[in-house]
Amino acid sequence: MRRTGIIFGSAVLLALPNTGFAQDMTAVVEATNSSAFIFNTLLFLIGGFLVMWMAAGFAMLEAGFVRTKNVSMQCLKNIMLYSLAGLMFWFFGYDVLYMAANDYVNFSAFITPGYTIEPVGLAGADDAATAALQGAALDTGYSVASDWFFQMVFCATTASIVSGTVAERIKFWPFFIFVAILTAFIYPVVASWEWGTGFLDDMGFSDFAGSTLVHSTGGWAALVGAIIIGPRLGKYVGGKVHPIPASNIPLATLGMFILWLGWFGFNGASQLAAGTIGDVADVSRIFVNTNMAAAGGVIAAIVYTQLRYGKIDVTLAINGALAGLVAITAEPLTPSVEVAIVVGAIGSILACLTVPLLDKLKIDDVVGAIPVHLVAGIFGTLVVAFTNPDVGFMPQLIGVVATAVFVSVVSAIVWILLKVTIGLRPSEEDEIVGLDQAEIGVPAYPEFVTP
Amino acid sequence: MRRTGIIFGSAVLLALPNTGFAQDMTAVVEATNSSAFIFNTLLFLIGGFLVMWMAAGFAMLEAGFVRTKNVSMQCLKNIMLYSLAGLMFWFFGYDVLYMAANDYVNFSAFITPGYTIEPVGLAGADDAATAALQGAALDTGYSVASDWFFQMVFCATTASIVSGTVAERIKFWPFFIFVAILTAFIYPVVASWEWGTGFLDDMGFSDFAGSTLVHSTGGWAALVGAIIIGPRLGKYVGGKVHPIPASNIPLATLGMFILWLGWFGFNGASQLAAGTIGDVADVSRIFVNTNMAAAGGVIAAIVYTQLRYGKIDVTLAINGALAGLVAITAEPLTPSVEVAIVVGAIGSILACLTVPLLDKLKIDDVVGAIPVHLVAGIFGTLVVAFTNPDVGFMPQLIGVVATAVFVSVVSAIVWILLKVTIGLRPSEEDEIVGLDQAEIGVPAYPEFVTP
Amino acid sequence: MRRTGIIFGSAVLLALPNTGFAQDMTAVVEATNSSAFIFNTLLFLIGGFLVMWMAAGFAMLEAGFVRTKNVSMQCLKNIMLYSLAGLMFWFFGYDVLYMAANDYVNFSAFITPGYTIEPVGLAGADDAATAALQGAALDTGYSVASDWFFQMVFCATTASIVSGTVAERIKFWPFFIFVAILTAFIYPVVASWEWGTGFLDDMGFSDFAGSTLVHSTGGWAALVGAIIIGPRLGKYVGGKVHPIPASNIPLATLGMFILWLGWFGFNGASQLAAGTIGDVADVSRIFVNTNMAAAGGVIAAIVYTQLRYGKIDVTLAINGALAGLVAITAEPLTPSVEVAIVVGAIGSILACLTVPLLDKLKIDDVVGAIPVHLVAGIFGTLVVAFTNPDVGFMPQLIGVVATAVFVSVVSAIVWILLKVTIGLRPSEEDEIVGLDQAEIGVPAYPEFVTP
Repeated sequence: MRRTGIIFGSAVLLALPNTGFAQDMTAVVEATNSSAFIFNTLLFLIGGFLVMWMAAGFAMLEAGFVRTKNVSMQCLKNIMLYSLAGLMFWFFGYDVLYMAANDYVNFSAFITPGYTIEPVGLAGADDAATAALQGAALDTGYSVASDWFFQMVFCATTASIVSGTVAERIKFWPFFIFVAILTAFIYPVVASWEWGTGFLDDMGFSDFAGSTLVHSTGGWAALVGAIIIGPRLGKYVGGKVHPIPASNIPLATLGMFILWLGWFGFNGASQLAAGTIGDVADVSRIFVNTNMAAAGGVIAAIVYTQLRYGKIDVTLAINGALAGLVAITAEPLTPSVEVAIVVGAIGSILACLTVPLLDKLKIDDVVGAIPVHLVAGIFGTLVVAFTNPDVGFMPQLIGVVATAVFVSVVSAIVWILLKVTIGLRPSEEDEIVGLDQAEIGVPAYPEFVTP
Repeated sequence: MRRTGIIFGSAVLLALPNTGFAQDMTAVVEATNSSAFIFNTLLFLIGGFLVMWMAAGFAMLEAGFVRTKNVSMQCLKNIMLYSLAGLMFWFFGYDVLYMAANDYVNFSAFITPGYTIEPVGLAGADDAATAALQGAALDTGYSVASDWFFQMVFCATTASIVSGTVAERIKFWPFFIFVAILTAFIYPVVASWEWGTGFLDDMGFSDFAGSTLVHSTGGWAALVGAIIIGPRLGKYVGGKVHPIPASNIPLATLGMFILWLGWFGFNGASQLAAGTIGDVADVSRIFVNTNMAAAGGVIAAIVYTQLRYGKIDVTLAINGALAGLVAITAEPLTPSVEVAIVVGAIGSILACLTVPLLDKLKIDDVVGAIPVHLVAGIFGTLVVAFTNPDVGFMPQLIGVVATAVFVSVVSAIVWILLKVTIGLRPSEEDEIVGLDQAEIGVPAYPEFVTP
Repeated sequence: MRRTGIIFGSAVLLALPNTGFAQDMTAVVEATNSSAFIFNTLLFLIGGFLVMWMAAGFAMLEAGFVRTKNVSMQCLKNIMLYSLAGLMFWFFGYDVLYMAANDYVNFSAFITPGYTIEPVGLAGADDAATAALQGAALDTGYSVASDWFFQMVFCATTASIVSGTVAERIKFWPFFIFVAILTAFIYPVVASWEWGTGFLDDMGFSDFAGSTLVHSTGGWAALVGAIIIGPRLGKYVGGKVHPIPASNIPLATLGMFILWLGWFGFNGASQLAAGTIGDVADVSRIFVNTNMAAAGGVIAAIVYTQLRYGKIDVTLAINGALAGLVAITAEPLTPSVEVAIVVGAIGSILACLTVPLLDKLKIDDVVGAIPVHLVAGIFGTLVVAFTNPDVGFMPQLIGVVATAVFVSVVSAIVWILLKVTIGLRPSEEDEIVGLDQAEIGVPAYPEFVTP
């Protein structure tokens, strides 16, 4: 943080000989190129830290939704999964996502011990100045490291979705073997189909920021996991559903607001560029549509639960916001604001309807991640065919189905292998006493008396 | 936050002699224009997401200040009000604020089913490139959508202020009818007087980021509401004040820090431009003054409560920070840092003095929003006459009085109409058992034993 | 989020005809200078608000780690220390840090009643336009106010470190006399040795964002304070260690995530410039390395506690993340990502090993700030000699030792003077009943029954 050696953007230009107009224009172009590069990179960095912050949002949401006896474990899982996702995406995931483009799975990626994140010439300030002068290496238009950071936080989001559904009845280490495979392989493969210019991209599938690629991927992995792991003890007994209330509503509310905030980065920075008037205007429109879809989701859930149950369920209002956000994620740019509100509202209602359906099927989803991320994610992806005139219904449907098949099958294999080898569930005693005491030894609120 | 006087980065360049290099200069000007447009838009987007985050701050502050039995409801109200404010501001508020400029109320706005937020030619990247080439449509200097987003979060803030004061004893739906009217009509009309180039702007009133237009507007609506709704059961009984302690101090502390953080966006982005050195230097000075006014408010409240009560009241320290922030909001740019500290400190002391005064008047303000937003807001507006040499005292006083009269009268009409029709208060039984059980059915902390 | 079709800002310009040069070049240089100035300033402002947000992180972390009976006090202390640090750094600290450059302590600074934060000519938009036109006053490359803001939040961080260690058994006012001296004098003097171009800078010491200058400074002050103040009642009795569990794990988890988020500003904006491709690429690499060191710290702590204790200690996972962050802070740019992970992991393990060591020495560190900020800070500083080829081991060691000696000695003098005059500790009765009741009168959770 020392004060010497600041390199001015103009340093290059000041040093240029002024002997005619050709070089001047070169300078103008380079200066403008530099600004575009910087704006694009800042978009990734700002969007990236907002999405990183979503890790805290999932942690608070889940810590609020689980019972007191499992709160420390849920905090620990969220800290660990964000960390592990980073490592997996570094050593494997990014390779799989981008380097494997066009041939889908490049197995050499799995043995690559990491790679440099800046092309030669952009590594340091001096080299970059040289590169700018030569007009070289500016083609990509942003710092590779900023892109990696932005892609990594998306990968971590996928794992966050799973952790909420299977909470309170899965052992620590088996869960993280699954997370490692999800973030190193399952998510990157699915994402590569579209963002790595794979077959979905070829056929015209469109998923702006990942209703399918991120949210449904997490949702399918969570759904299959919930089925294979089974429900929490006492949830479905004697043919009846025994609701298990959330232990801390303000924490869950905080989590929702964090996620809402982070979603501006999630969707906004998925524009991938902010260096032109058109791009930054698009980012602005995405902010508005993202916000309004969430607002539509909240109001729809509140009106629905008031009419349906006679009371307003705050947990459904929270999940309504999130379902609205998931639904608009596949296309936050082209819809008008009114359409964005409606998309969010429908996503929210579908999520509300899915909650009792899962209970009927005895699928225990602790935080409601399946309604929010999977159901609203599928809806959001399909509805793009009606909100973006350049997108057809069939490619959307194929994308949804391909993701469903691939993620469900691979997840099922992994979950089942874990179940039959090291086992997924803690002992009944451990589950009853709570994972905080059984696996961590640190209760979340040791001084508050609980019944 | 007025709309006049945006200085373009290109102003300097346009003034340069153009002798023989006309088209080059056009290119330079356009490139610089592009950067200014992008910087201005990013200021709105970053400032906007910081102010959006204030919705979480109010939620946590209020969830910490109300009793345990009303925490879920307070969370729900904050989720709902941010969502509803967005819809109301989209369908009505922004129209009222800006489109009605000069003739104050354009009733056609109320039947407009929404409008497009980008002028033709800026909708997409390709069009924007065309627009940049033609030099057209850059006049506004920022994305209209980014401006809408920034204005919307201000509107939502006004509603947040009311929800804290009237907490714990108002039914859900009547409250939201009031919020709808406040965000669609009351706030936008007041804001239009100044930021919509209305009569206050004409007469030289100055309110940089809204000590009066946002905070006092919310404060007057809250004060009138608190009077008409009446105090919580048990607060004033037998001529005595029965203090009702906050249920969760760390949540309230978190809320305060969120609001403090958000205020950098609130005041900083109200500069409305960051595309020139002068503008970004001004934004920086605003950051410093905003921070130091809050710091002054904290220290003043701590010293005051230590001297006055012999103990340091943490809730007054929290509200002291907020009062300091409200007080500096009317003019965060022109004062020196020392003056900003003093402005924040006086705002804080005035808020501290107002708390017992309200109790004497049996006006029950659950979170202290009236001392913080109304009293410090009035002080902050009036003191601009002494901290900004271009501003006179009379316009400031007229602005304060006009806002007081308009907001009080219209709010009173709405609150009274609600009271005599659908009713404002829950039944005594519902209030005693708590709104979480009565209207939501989801307690905030079901596993913690309470007395 | 697909990768195709990024439109450069230069597309328009490339199509333009070119005919002239000298004045054009002036304009180009000035426009580019303006953009660099704006980017640099935005980096300070965005980085600054992220680091300001760390104040909330420390507040939540500490509120989660102390016992229920001291939570209000810990919240209050964090509100106060951030406020007081701002005032002290305004009136004294910044002077000491920068104006005293080269002669280390300029005592006139201590009687300066503040100074203007913008050089003449940059005060307002109009003047700035003039300055830009003249090419004057752009030498510093950023707004002085934005730099002040960024430096101030670093200063506040130092004080936050101390407050966690000495929690639960120090009186309010003596603590703040120490904080005032720390933020006005101790930290600024140490920081001036390097960032004020002092003797450590001269000899080649390298501490990019402050592993030593910020974190070890806070750590030494905390260690000396913990020794002089003594442990909490009941912590070490009869030759045994009686662990005192954290009262609220989700709050501590939230605090950790806030700090992790803030650290992107802490390290990223310590690049001090974002106006060139090289600088913004460096900021991006710093983001990645910072994130991965924290991730390495988490995983190392989890694996270590699993192997060592048979259970995973969530509080050590939290502190592992923070130790990883502290360790990479001295050099987040030059290491490869793999090396950053290892640096974070080692910092975390060292912190884990220090916890029992402190207990053996009967040094009571409530939140683990000494392991995290001091031990990982020393390691992080020394390891720069191996991760940055331009840095030698001896300067690093001298920097560590000089900081140790200066901060320990001055802190010890201040702590001892406070102890023998107004006293540091509350009475035994006050400590047992808790500081919330003794000094504040506002319990943190009045409605939750505690044993």
